Amino acid sequence: MTDRIHAQLAFLTEVDKLKTVLRGTTLCDSSRRENSGEHSWHIALYAMVMAEHAVKPVDISRVIKMLLIHDIVEIDAGDNPIHGDHDPAEMAAIEQVAAARIFGLLPDDQAQAFRALWDEFEAAETDDAVFAKSIDRVQPVVSNLETNGGTWPEYNVTAEQLQTRVGVKVQRGAPAIWDALKRRIDTWFGQ
Amino acid sequence: MTDRIHAQLAFLTEVDKLKTVLRGTTLCDSSRRENSGEHSWHIALYAMVMAEHAVKPVDISRVIKMLLIHDIVEIDAGDNPIHGDHDPAEMAAIEQVAAARIFGLLPDDQAQAFRALWDEFEAAETDDAVFAKSIDRVQPVVSNLETNGGTWPEYNVTAEQLQTRVGVKVQRGAPAIWDALKRRIDTWFGQ
Repeated sequence: MTDRIHAQLAFLTEVDKLKTVLRGTTLCDSSRRENSGEHSWHIALYAMVMAEHAVKPVDISRVIKMLLIHDIVEIDAGDNPIHGDHDPAEMAAIEQVAAARIFGLLPDDQAQAFRALWDEFEAAETDDAVFAKSIDRVQPVVSNLETNGGTWPEYNVTAEQLQTRVGVKVQRGAPAIWDALKRRIDTWFGQ
Repeated sequence: MTDRIHAQLAFLTEVDKLKTVLRGTTLCDSSRRENSGEHSWHIALYAMVMAEHAVKPVDISRVIKMLLIHDIVEIDAGDNPIHGDHDPAEMAAIEQVAAARIFGLLPDDQAQAFRALWDEFEAAETDDAVFAKSIDRVQPVVSNLETNGGTWPEYNVTAEQLQTRVGVKVQRGAPAIWDALKRRIDTWFGQ
């Protein structure tokens, strides 16, 4: 049992590094870049509050667990802003290696269960994963709206890009939330 | 529905401030103080990984939800390190007011449900709350062990104080975890 606990603690200590991975958005007070650890907390709470708006019923417990682990691969792979410039296939390959290494620190049964949950999130096919992906896209939009566009100008984001890269994904899992944000988004982009 | 979503977003934007509340412990790389947002993510993940060590069976979904919201009152009340110097009764009163204000931003049904969950955590009587409280105490101990005692010297913590203020609470909900940490703790304190 002690060996098992020490393996679990090794994983939990390793993932502390997620608090040092910086994202493309800032805090809502613009004071600094957000890190992927605090982002993961925030969107788990977003999911807990917003579950009723899922386009299909979800198991919110599974969604929250997915969101708690969804960014852990960034410890090795870094964060790739949705409006940034990176090769998706290359990133996916790097993230696969990261998932094997980091989830592999856990006892075997948990390594497999966590990896399966992360794979489900990445595949974005189940109702739980589709909603989780939607929520992951909502929070940065709210941060940018709260900070006068936030990092949209830095990434030269247009209204069309936001709709294509973000809106479509939010609408897939939580259309009511995108509808509620649309007026604020249109106002910011001057439409 | 739109009004409801905007109330939910007002709450979710307000709690962004938890990312600026600094705690008594540092990250595991000693680079800076940990904030209460990323701490909340980390201990929710601790609970997810460590649920099997709960002294009595828990509903891990409820435990995780408790941990996601347990520190939100710190936005108004600040963090009070367990080895710090503060009046518990005074802090409890301030946190009650904070809970009313912050959870009160949510739609009424959710405000009541979130408040009830936070009250349950604070009361530390149900099996879920006892385990959640234990996990909340484990993570700072691991951070301090990973950073050569971390902030223990700053707070003049003795082995006896750690046992009384932390050990007893971890043992109440997750004795196997405390047993696994005890040798590292004793070694650090030179016992």
